[in-house]
Amino acid sequence: MTALPLNPHLPLGDQRTAPWYGKDILSVRQFTHDDLKFLFGVAHEMRVMVERVGTFDLLKGKILASLFYEPSTRTSSSFTAAMERLGGSVIPISEVKYSSVSKGESLPDTVRSLECYADVIVLRHPEIGSAALAAKYARKPIINAGDGVGEHPTQALLDLFTILEELGKVDGLTITMLGDLKYGRTVHSLSRLLSLYNVKLNFVSPDILKMPADILEELQAKGVPFSQHTTLDAVLPETDVLYVTRVQKERFENPEIYEAHKNTYVINPGVMRPAKEKMIVMHPLPRVTEIGIEFDEDPRAAYFRQMEYGLYVRMALLALVLGKA
Amino acid sequence: MTALPLNPHLPLGDQRTAPWYGKDILSVRQFTHDDLKFLFGVAHEMRVMVERVGTFDLLKGKILASLFYEPSTRTSSSFTAAMERLGGSVIPISEVKYSSVSKGESLPDTVRSLECYADVIVLRHPEIGSAALAAKYARKPIINAGDGVGEHPTQALLDLFTILEELGKVDGLTITMLGDLKYGRTVHSLSRLLSLYNVKLNFVSPDILKMPADILEELQAKGVPFSQHTTLDAVLPETDVLYVTRVQKERFENPEIYEAHKNTYVINPGVMRPAKEKMIVMHPLPRVTEIGIEFDEDPRAAYFRQMEYGLYVRMALLALVLGKA
Amino acid sequence: MTALPLNPHLPLGDQRTAPWYGKDILSVRQFTHDDLKFLFGVAHEMRVMVERVGTFDLLKGKILASLFYEPSTRTSSSFTAAMERLGGSVIPISEVKYSSVSKGESLPDTVRSLECYADVIVLRHPEIGSAALAAKYARKPIINAGDGVGEHPTQALLDLFTILEELGKVDGLTITMLGDLKYGRTVHSLSRLLSLYNVKLNFVSPDILKMPADILEELQAKGVPFSQHTTLDAVLPETDVLYVTRVQKERFENPEIYEAHKNTYVINPGVMRPAKEKMIVMHPLPRVTEIGIEFDEDPRAAYFRQMEYGLYVRMALLALVLGKA
Repeated sequence: MTALPLNPHLPLGDQRTAPWYGKDILSVRQFTHDDLKFLFGVAHEMRVMVERVGTFDLLKGKILASLFYEPSTRTSSSFTAAMERLGGSVIPISEVKYSSVSKGESLPDTVRSLECYADVIVLRHPEIGSAALAAKYARKPIINAGDGVGEHPTQALLDLFTILEELGKVDGLTITMLGDLKYGRTVHSLSRLLSLYNVKLNFVSPDILKMPADILEELQAKGVPFSQHTTLDAVLPETDVLYVTRVQKERFENPEIYEAHKNTYVINPGVMRPAKEKMIVMHPLPRVTEIGIEFDEDPRAAYFRQMEYGLYVRMALLALVLGKA
Repeated sequence: MTALPLNPHLPLGDQRTAPWYGKDILSVRQFTHDDLKFLFGVAHEMRVMVERVGTFDLLKGKILASLFYEPSTRTSSSFTAAMERLGGSVIPISEVKYSSVSKGESLPDTVRSLECYADVIVLRHPEIGSAALAAKYARKPIINAGDGVGEHPTQALLDLFTILEELGKVDGLTITMLGDLKYGRTVHSLSRLLSLYNVKLNFVSPDILKMPADILEELQAKGVPFSQHTTLDAVLPETDVLYVTRVQKERFENPEIYEAHKNTYVINPGVMRPAKEKMIVMHPLPRVTEIGIEFDEDPRAAYFRQMEYGLYVRMALLALVLGKA
Repeated sequence: MTALPLNPHLPLGDQRTAPWYGKDILSVRQFTHDDLKFLFGVAHEMRVMVERVGTFDLLKGKILASLFYEPSTRTSSSFTAAMERLGGSVIPISEVKYSSVSKGESLPDTVRSLECYADVIVLRHPEIGSAALAAKYARKPIINAGDGVGEHPTQALLDLFTILEELGKVDGLTITMLGDLKYGRTVHSLSRLLSLYNVKLNFVSPDILKMPADILEELQAKGVPFSQHTTLDAVLPETDVLYVTRVQKERFENPEIYEAHKNTYVINPGVMRPAKEKMIVMHPLPRVTEIGIEFDEDPRAAYFRQMEYGLYVRMALLALVLGKA
């Protein structure tokens, strides 16, 4: 699947939903600014509907195959809930390692079998490119729920939707990403999505965990202003969105460097004192110690609400690719 | 959550269901005699409804997150069936050991994430106090499905409901508990619940597996008559309910003592000859050899029916905490 | 359960569905030619309904316990989808090894517990005779989803239904089975079912993997014409159905013999050139190298459609044993 062009042969009413019908969701790169605007409009409607009535039968009779080659409670639960809140059903396939896959079956064969039973497939797989491979063979839509060090597009979409819902806009904001920016798949994808908006980006990390050069080049090519830092102090006061990620000890060859840095990237009420009153702190979760639980009660702590926004984005995506939004 | 008081601000019609709405089910200690009477009334209605129509849509659109940190096919199946028979959906999370929890996430964070997707959480966890901890952080109701050596309140409730449905009353009955009374969580909780009724209790066990002193003191304080025995013979003829538990070999330091006792606590048609014609034999299941399968056809063998009463009690609890009973 | 006789006490309209209600599906041997004709009629209706409306609420309120003692993604997904496409619910029990079963509980006890919650049980178990054992104790219908080297009747039924739907008839066809005919459970069951029709059978295998004598004797006793071969060449041109199975290296004591044979039993476009234009290639899946993926686009490649026919057959069976077809 590539970007989503309008279809000139459709009446105007179908112009916006038709391009999504039957499509795969593989990468954040496939979306234009207009696609995101439309998607988030649908996601917002989902939020309103869930808050008002809990569930509704938009996808009644539709079946999602939830195919997880590696466990991810949070992501699989979110997709399951999204399908069930729309009245659809789920075939959960989480013990894949024991099953026909381990007998040597290829991913294309597994996907072509499952699509005999299901209307849409959500795939989590440890290998980069696996979602694209599955989509190449599948007749039914594939939604990439993480392909190793590749992409996890629905995470990036829910991150962006969180910003939009919490702060009312994306343009004009200063977004600061903190922690492990080298290996963090989420900050890479989010940076790419944010390059479609007028934002200012601050990257705060230890030297050995800086944002990769290819991401920085992409941002430069698109004219997105950004700056790099090793401490948070200078940029925190101007920050509208602080996106925190975990700095893992294993990333450091020299444990002394880890020890020297680890407390620099911990968020707690004291650290947050210079921050704006109206701003948000996000985290892809799970967190360990990089955000102290004593900050959880702060209204700026948006990381659990972020989970909930993920539900609405996934509801919107499922409805759209199944042609029912 | 503490006991369930009536709310003086509500009209009388809501007086009985309102106190349950949004509440956690953590311990048998939280229930009064009146709470039990009301709960079992609802559970009985569930039984009638299931027998008449199979399922109904009382909880249509509601989602249960079934969060099992250790496997328990029986309990998880029972809650899943309870939710589905009420028209609701389930997010099954049974491979928790592989998931974000094993990445180091805390139980409170897991629960606060899941409640973004679900309306109620059933939690099974190997550590005592885990359900209370989860409830402290969760906005949505937590139902304790066993917290290690702590409590398993829905098991005790279904045990009591079984007695009520099978024998038509609880007051006035003689209940004999047999086997491992020291480590058996079910007999402890059931004893506590029974102390709210006018019953006589007999405890039959090897000396080293006697009912713990704190339970006996509680019973004494509440004026519940009880007696302790090492063999069943003397008390079987007067018994209305015989609650059998397994005596596990591992509990005995001296294997000779185990060998000497093991056949003393096996129920079979011969052993049951002196028992009343109208009485019941219960067991929390799974059983191994402590009840011979040749007794299964006896109408007094209530242990499989007991499973079914569990379904109705769990349906009632789910409906009540979701405000729909 | 034995064969399905008509019930003389029922009005004619119920004559055909009534014999299925409440019955177990344990073996292909329990079906007569008329049973199959009726079953496939219902399965065809299911196909039409799914293609037209996706799902329908025939089994709304019914619960399937899907009890898998060994993993089989394909089979469990198929039954789950079948139940969900009929509006029913599923209790998935796939981690049985960790559960009460591993505490030593017997299969009869597990089944008698589960039937307290469910309306029908699908059982996959590694031991031959396990489904019959479960059925002996269960009040609710048991569907055998594979009992070790025993039977996997729904696979054989879907194989036969595939032939019928793809070629419009079974009588008069020449069916060639290829590969491991000694250990292949599917080809044994399918041969037995085909002996109810007027077919000609060709068995193509290495000498050490020939169809077992008892199957050949059964075919002979029923007057089914068959012949045995070690290569495909002679019989391929007359073949209407080519049923391919995998030849596993482990079956050969002498690896040289395996190496000598392995390419003899690989299907690809070149090999298929002498075959009819209107014929089908089937495979129970998963396949490894015995059918090249370059053959997948050939219209005669029916193995993925075969999966889909499995859905309709399982929908029909579930509806019939639950009395709702």
